[in-house]
Amino acid sequence: MDKATSDLQAEVDRLRHELQSLTIENKPSDNEEHITVSDYLLTRLEQLGVTSIFGVPGDFNMRDYIEDHPRINWIGDCNELNAAYAADGYARVKEHSIGVVVTTFGVGELSAINGIAGAFSEMVPVLHIVGVPSTVQLKTKPLLHHTLGNGRYPFDAYTKAAEQVTISQAKLMNKGHAATEIDRVLTDCITHARPVYLTLPTNMVGEQIPSRRLGVPLPRTPPANNPDVEAYVLEEIVKLVDAANQDIIILIDACAIRHDVRDEVNDLLTKTRFPVYSAPMGKTAVSEEHDRYGGIYIGSISDPAIKKKVETAKLILSIGALKSDFNTGMFTYSIPAIHTVELHSDHTLVRHAQFPGIGMKLLLPKLTAHLKQYQQGASQLDVPRFKLDVPKETDERITHTYFWPRVGKFFKKRDVIVAETGTSSFGILDVPLPDQSVFLSQILYGSIGWTVGNTLGAAIAARDKNLGRVILFVGDGSLQLTVQELSTMIHQRLTPIIFVINNDGYNIERNLHGMERKYNDIQDWKWTSLLTTLGDLDGTLSKSYTVRDKASLDKLLDDAEFAKAGKIQLVEVVMGKFDTPRALKAAAELSAKNAEKV
Amino acid sequence: MDKATSDLQAEVDRLRHELQSLTIENKPSDNEEHITVSDYLLTRLEQLGVTSIFGVPGDFNMRDYIEDHPRINWIGDCNELNAAYAADGYARVKEHSIGVVVTTFGVGELSAINGIAGAFSEMVPVLHIVGVPSTVQLKTKPLLHHTLGNGRYPFDAYTKAAEQVTISQAKLMNKGHAATEIDRVLTDCITHARPVYLTLPTNMVGEQIPSRRLGVPLPRTPPANNPDVEAYVLEEIVKLVDAANQDIIILIDACAIRHDVRDEVNDLLTKTRFPVYSAPMGKTAVSEEHDRYGGIYIGSISDPAIKKKVETAKLILSIGALKSDFNTGMFTYSIPAIHTVELHSDHTLVRHAQFPGIGMKLLLPKLTAHLKQYQQGASQLDVPRFKLDVPKETDERITHTYFWPRVGKFFKKRDVIVAETGTSSFGILDVPLPDQSVFLSQILYGSIGWTVGNTLGAAIAARDKNLGRVILFVGDGSLQLTVQELSTMIHQRLTPIIFVINNDGYNIERNLHGMERKYNDIQDWKWTSLLTTLGDLDGTLSKSYTVRDKASLDKLLDDAEFAKAGKIQLVEVVMGKFDTPRALKAAAELSAKNAEKV
Repeated sequence: MDKATSDLQAEVDRLRHELQSLTIENKPSDNEEHITVSDYLLTRLEQLGVTSIFGVPGDFNMRDYIEDHPRINWIGDCNELNAAYAADGYARVKEHSIGVVVTTFGVGELSAINGIAGAFSEMVPVLHIVGVPSTVQLKTKPLLHHTLGNGRYPFDAYTKAAEQVTISQAKLMNKGHAATEIDRVLTDCITHARPVYLTLPTNMVGEQIPSRRLGVPLPRTPPANNPDVEAYVLEEIVKLVDAANQDIIILIDACAIRHDVRDEVNDLLTKTRFPVYSAPMGKTAVSEEHDRYGGIYIGSISDPAIKKKVETAKLILSIGALKSDFNTGMFTYSIPAIHTVELHSDHTLVRHAQFPGIGMKLLLPKLTAHLKQYQQGASQLDVPRFKLDVPKETDERITHTYFWPRVGKFFKKRDVIVAETGTSSFGILDVPLPDQSVFLSQILYGSIGWTVGNTLGAAIAARDKNLGRVILFVGDGSLQLTVQELSTMIHQRLTPIIFVINNDGYNIERNLHGMERKYNDIQDWKWTSLLTTLGDLDGTLSKSYTVRDKASLDKLLDDAEFAKAGKIQLVEVVMGKFDTPRALKAAAELSAKNAEKV
Repeated sequence: MDKATSDLQAEVDRLRHELQSLTIENKPSDNEEHITVSDYLLTRLEQLGVTSIFGVPGDFNMRDYIEDHPRINWIGDCNELNAAYAADGYARVKEHSIGVVVTTFGVGELSAINGIAGAFSEMVPVLHIVGVPSTVQLKTKPLLHHTLGNGRYPFDAYTKAAEQVTISQAKLMNKGHAATEIDRVLTDCITHARPVYLTLPTNMVGEQIPSRRLGVPLPRTPPANNPDVEAYVLEEIVKLVDAANQDIIILIDACAIRHDVRDEVNDLLTKTRFPVYSAPMGKTAVSEEHDRYGGIYIGSISDPAIKKKVETAKLILSIGALKSDFNTGMFTYSIPAIHTVELHSDHTLVRHAQFPGIGMKLLLPKLTAHLKQYQQGASQLDVPRFKLDVPKETDERITHTYFWPRVGKFFKKRDVIVAETGTSSFGILDVPLPDQSVFLSQILYGSIGWTVGNTLGAAIAARDKNLGRVILFVGDGSLQLTVQELSTMIHQRLTPIIFVINNDGYNIERNLHGMERKYNDIQDWKWTSLLTTLGDLDGTLSKSYTVRDKASLDKLLDDAEFAKAGKIQLVEVVMGKFDTPRALKAAAELSAKNAEKV
């Protein structure tokens, strides 16, 4: 099926859906096939490629149906926040699918809400299913446990809280609307790449509803661009490209991944051979081994050579930009709008002109068709090779300047690399990652501890997709927030490699505020006992190591058995309390300057 | 100072405050004393008896001022949910004071919100201070980390979420209003015993404001009852008491503790000698060793003798009732309104008649004065002694029927006893607790894992108040949610005794739903390694034990060194997977019946 045909098919599916919502509802015929509300939902999830659902038991939810489902697994987490983080990680690795987290209402959903907010902020499609009391109880409002007592009732309070961090909500109060409501929130989830919220009353879980709608898959394609406006936009862009006289670069960012235009961008790249750079949040959207890839642009914090290439280009084709503080070197982009075309999921900017409704998913293939004529000229442009050598340092201690390039040599094709907000996310920026590797970090929302739950979800998805090793970098302070999820990794027989940077506290916080303050200290842990304490009771499922100097680090990274990642492994990396990656130090200094200004 | 004088003084303070709010504001004189906004807030907290503040560092908050404060300690928690739980525990033990939790915005506050919701539900005074970006940034809205990205901005989203679970919110956007706003939310917090929310922009933290208002303490006394209505209510109650012909009992519940009428109730009890029973959430509101105390009433789940005494009484004086499902034996109270007088913090019910605005704090002393004439008659009434013998069981295994009465013998005067929702909170109900002991459980909101953070806060408060040992009962499943806070206990050199009931999973969930389901299983941990792994690196600060049979349990409980609680101790109590306390089993059965009905 070629692209045009598949676009048409998608539009047909979308229209059928709209039609179904208007006509089928409330007209079940007696002899048609029925299915429970839970199984309807699970079938939809299966259609979206969901194989695992994360959550914590609570008395009001649908987990029997999940446990009994032949192709969907229940992954029991240690707590709800971690479950939400895991669903986010699963969705990030399993592109085109979604993450799902199930909790009970009140206590469960509010414990998870920060994970959902992170998915909202960073545009990750996550469905939060909340088991709630029966529809009768929701009306009569008895003083049930998990409620806010005589003050407020959950449907008033909890749903309002959820509305703040999800794009769409459905309360299944009536089986007649269950199927359309489920389809509505799921469609919002996949088309907007943001979290949605669904409450499932206990008495709704097993209700029988017609299964007919399941025959039509949920529509994925965004609404068509207005053809006249789109044609105009294309013409304007081509004029700018023409005027730029080959001095054009592509700058790729987070939304290219989230809004699923990787393939379109790679096609543009292959056909135009424009040099491409990436923002931190766009890292690995384009292969960092691609010969037209020049590295990470992060405003004034960039490598000077990269900074110059990007900022002096006559035209920047920015794709999926997400200009948050840490993603832009604290707002130090020096790219005038007059030199910029920005493609977004739902609008386009050409210099100062805004074109709402012109989305990149459908625009990009047409743009590529128009721009491929520039290939020959663009190919002449020199792109600096993105590389980072391991420095020679006489000091035996493991420094950030040594550590990050050194682990860079350890990575392999198809590895999934997760970096915690802080020293890890900043340290790894300068490290080129291998082709087909996946990079996960929460650079915008920046909730510390996120990576631990996220690694669980990522590892489950990586197993599904037959990806390589899952490698987590997390600081000692951050690991303390969510440490129990190591237990679920053991329970699920996952085998990530976990590098714990032990530097006596919250290093990013020290750099942002209070370098020598006691509140940035933490209690030291016996890091290498964590895996055995939290589940590997006989010590056969895991291995733990401490490395205190460069030689031990090198030896471990060169060890083939370690590199094979056959069991879960934890490496405590002892580093200096005040040692900090270059990019983080620079970002913290800029942050302090910004704060002074206001 | 007698009662009448102190009431008058309180009213004078309250009126002065109202007056100040109207007049002082915005009229600072040049030579008056100034103080930073942070120190203003800390001084108010100190006036309320706050000695410790819980939280997690984040780049936007006031923790320097806390660390530098000579009489208030910063307690760094492992994560924000635990910090909120700790603030709740601190407030519960330190009656008349409040709990305080400090987080950064977005990631921090949303991680804590479930703890705040629990405090709302169970009426615990907690102040949540949220460090937010500068007032300028809040207006210009740059895409900062911790925000919801290009979708929504925190002041729109996060504050709306907070509004659902706090009774009062203040955004300090302007130093002119800072003092009145701080005073307003703190007054709401202490008078309504519910959480409040305060955002503190980075540039507001160090602003200078007049300190004059600090001279007048915050008003605590509730507004006066309307004298005519109050007199009428008193007369009505006296008539009913008279007609009841000595067959009167008092039923005490949670709100008597939360709304600070313990002393008033004890005075009523001493002067009338009416028999008194307690709902589960009112446990220890009246000493369980009091000779007029008959035990726990929990509807149809009650001990039959207690059930009969309560339900056949001609008049029930209910004080501070909170009729939630688990607190009432799943709504099985059999007490007709016609036999009931209910006293609440802000209203009174006499049979079916409602008297809004007539609050118990001021009503109770008057009621006592009217009812003391009935003492002689009431004294004749027999009250069954509340006791629970350790049963003789030939089985060596540790059963719930054995365990709870056995630990009952271990408790001492002034112990603080914390019981997790589930087997622990139900198991301990039947156990008489010693005089002056404090009982903590989250029976209404029921967020599992709550006790671990709560124990931290309770232990800090207990140290302040020179109380006895802090003893936690928590299940293996629940401990997994919040386990890292054991580390903070070690860091703070606290010495609680932690009984971990290891019964292979979520026992309360099994009883409520899915007895044999896999989703109620958990990964087993090496429980006795937790304390060393999470901070007691050389093993000198803690001790851990496993008890698998009655004899080992008895031996440990009889060990004087253990009982002294000189260091933090963890006891893994191995129990049967399906063994369940009587009251929990009964509640689960009733819950299932209720669910079928709807």
